[in-house]
Amino acid sequence: MSALTPISPIAFVSQAGASEVQQWISALQAAMPEERILPCEQLDADQLAQCRVAIVANPDPAQLKRMPNLLWVHSVWAGVERLVADLGQSDLQLTRLVDPRLAATMAEAVLAWTLYLHRDMPLYARRQREHHWEAQPYVLPEQRRVSLLGLGALGEAAAAALRQARFAVNGWSRSAREAEGVQTFHGPAGLAQMLAQTDILVCLLPLTAETRGLIDAAHLAMLPPQAQLINFARGPIIDDAALKAALDAGQLRHAVLDVFAVEPLPPAAWPWSHPAVTVLPHCSAPTDRQTASAIVAANIRRYRHSGEIAANVDLRRGY
Amino acid sequence: MSALTPISPIAFVSQAGASEVQQWISALQAAMPEERILPCEQLDADQLAQCRVAIVANPDPAQLKRMPNLLWVHSVWAGVERLVADLGQSDLQLTRLVDPRLAATMAEAVLAWTLYLHRDMPLYARRQREHHWEAQPYVLPEQRRVSLLGLGALGEAAAAALRQARFAVNGWSRSAREAEGVQTFHGPAGLAQMLAQTDILVCLLPLTAETRGLIDAAHLAMLPPQAQLINFARGPIIDDAALKAALDAGQLRHAVLDVFAVEPLPPAAWPWSHPAVTVLPHCSAPTDRQTASAIVAANIRRYRHSGEIAANVDLRRGY
Repeated sequence: MSALTPISPIAFVSQAGASEVQQWISALQAAMPEERILPCEQLDADQLAQCRVAIVANPDPAQLKRMPNLLWVHSVWAGVERLVADLGQSDLQLTRLVDPRLAATMAEAVLAWTLYLHRDMPLYARRQREHHWEAQPYVLPEQRRVSLLGLGALGEAAAAALRQARFAVNGWSRSAREAEGVQTFHGPAGLAQMLAQTDILVCLLPLTAETRGLIDAAHLAMLPPQAQLINFARGPIIDDAALKAALDAGQLRHAVLDVFAVEPLPPAAWPWSHPAVTVLPHCSAPTDRQTASAIVAANIRRYRHSGEIAANVDLRRGY
Repeated sequence: MSALTPISPIAFVSQAGASEVQQWISALQAAMPEERILPCEQLDADQLAQCRVAIVANPDPAQLKRMPNLLWVHSVWAGVERLVADLGQSDLQLTRLVDPRLAATMAEAVLAWTLYLHRDMPLYARRQREHHWEAQPYVLPEQRRVSLLGLGALGEAAAAALRQARFAVNGWSRSAREAEGVQTFHGPAGLAQMLAQTDILVCLLPLTAETRGLIDAAHLAMLPPQAQLINFARGPIIDDAALKAALDAGQLRHAVLDVFAVEPLPPAAWPWSHPAVTVLPHCSAPTDRQTASAIVAANIRRYRHSGEIAANVDLRRGY
């Protein structure tokens, strides 16, 4: 491509507020000053027709349909289940963000809230409200079995952090995978095996047709009594009614929930006031705009130079 | 020593309840079956006169005085400030427990409650009570300065765990020390320097004449606004009234307190109900009876074979 050829603009498509959109465009533009990145709403018909690439953060699918020659949708989010649902019948290429910084932040969150449960912080908070001084017996981390659902980039980083803290780490994936120092399981039979030897279950799965409702009443019943649960993935992977029933019955000791079917979690939703639930506002691993923009810029540069599109989502599988 | 020579009994001296005393004696006896370890209260006058060694867990000093030929007091606790006060004018040798397991458990506690503050768990708990969905901006661990007061075995283990989690770690000790990857400070001037660049201050100091009240109003005022504090050492190191004033004024954002001048913390004490305080029941790093007994046994075996006493507390310095 010569310097004289005007390159096609890149559309930024998002339903976020104006201030967040502007912060994203500034970060992306700083990472690739050679590109013209414009909010989709500001493009005229000619420019929309020129667009080959869209960078998206929770886009309105109707906006994507306004670009008839679009080839490639690059998300700045790691979770793309809504995009997959919207793009399923199209020929578009799709890239989700795979950012080592995101994996590090998620690993930190998994470690932080695993320690929160391991060291009985919810119980001590209750005892503080009652002015009740009583220490729990200490459990060695080696005796605490932490089981990860999902062994992709996030699961692997989380497993490494948990192993450093000397927890006994299990990991489950759809098809067989190995991870250093992790007892691995796969497939439906492996899931049942792993759940039976779990003290803290951590969900890091993508939301797909196969994972929606995967953790249902039957799977929750396979956990040992007093197991605890962390969901940092997507709300609908866990059956909401089955989770509430397991918590109400004391079969599950505590749940840390960062993700919900509807977000923000509506004020009247049951998790807010359940004594065995810690509600978090989808804060486990926020995207870092700087590192994410650098990754998107590198992918787009490769495309400009070689035509190669760094697609990493299989629209049929959904991840 | 021949098998025919009866060895002197070892007194176990503690103000703990009968059940805990029995658990300690069982663990100690299992670790050194060649010894006779008896509760001090069960020894007759002849046996008391034979005792050269006492193993203690929060002993009544009057009990120690009943053994006229006592040479050596071996604590199963790491903190021995009360013993030092009681033994200060005697010629006894004193050993406090230095257990790598204890250091590992303390390092885990420092990491767990540093992450608790780093990831804004107290704030999210408040927001949950208000059914308020709002995520805090994420702060990278590299941008969070965690400062350790004390760089002994506990401080070094804590520093290593914090560095693995990528925090920026400072450390202060009375006299100059180095620790890998830690910015170190020492002496009064170094303390002031370190406090000025601290987001989370973690107290791991022994309680001595020099550290009693060390963290007073003047030192708390040197912390940047909104700094946070963790005390896993001894309550009286921090000036109670100054701490409450700094929390009330919002100069300190939050304090995690595991230790208090009076324990159990009395039900009417202010920390229980202060919104910026997390009260813990002295649970950060409990002694592990098995590993502690093995360490005591090894020290006593060395004494029986060579006469060497593994004293590790300087009664003049107090630690």
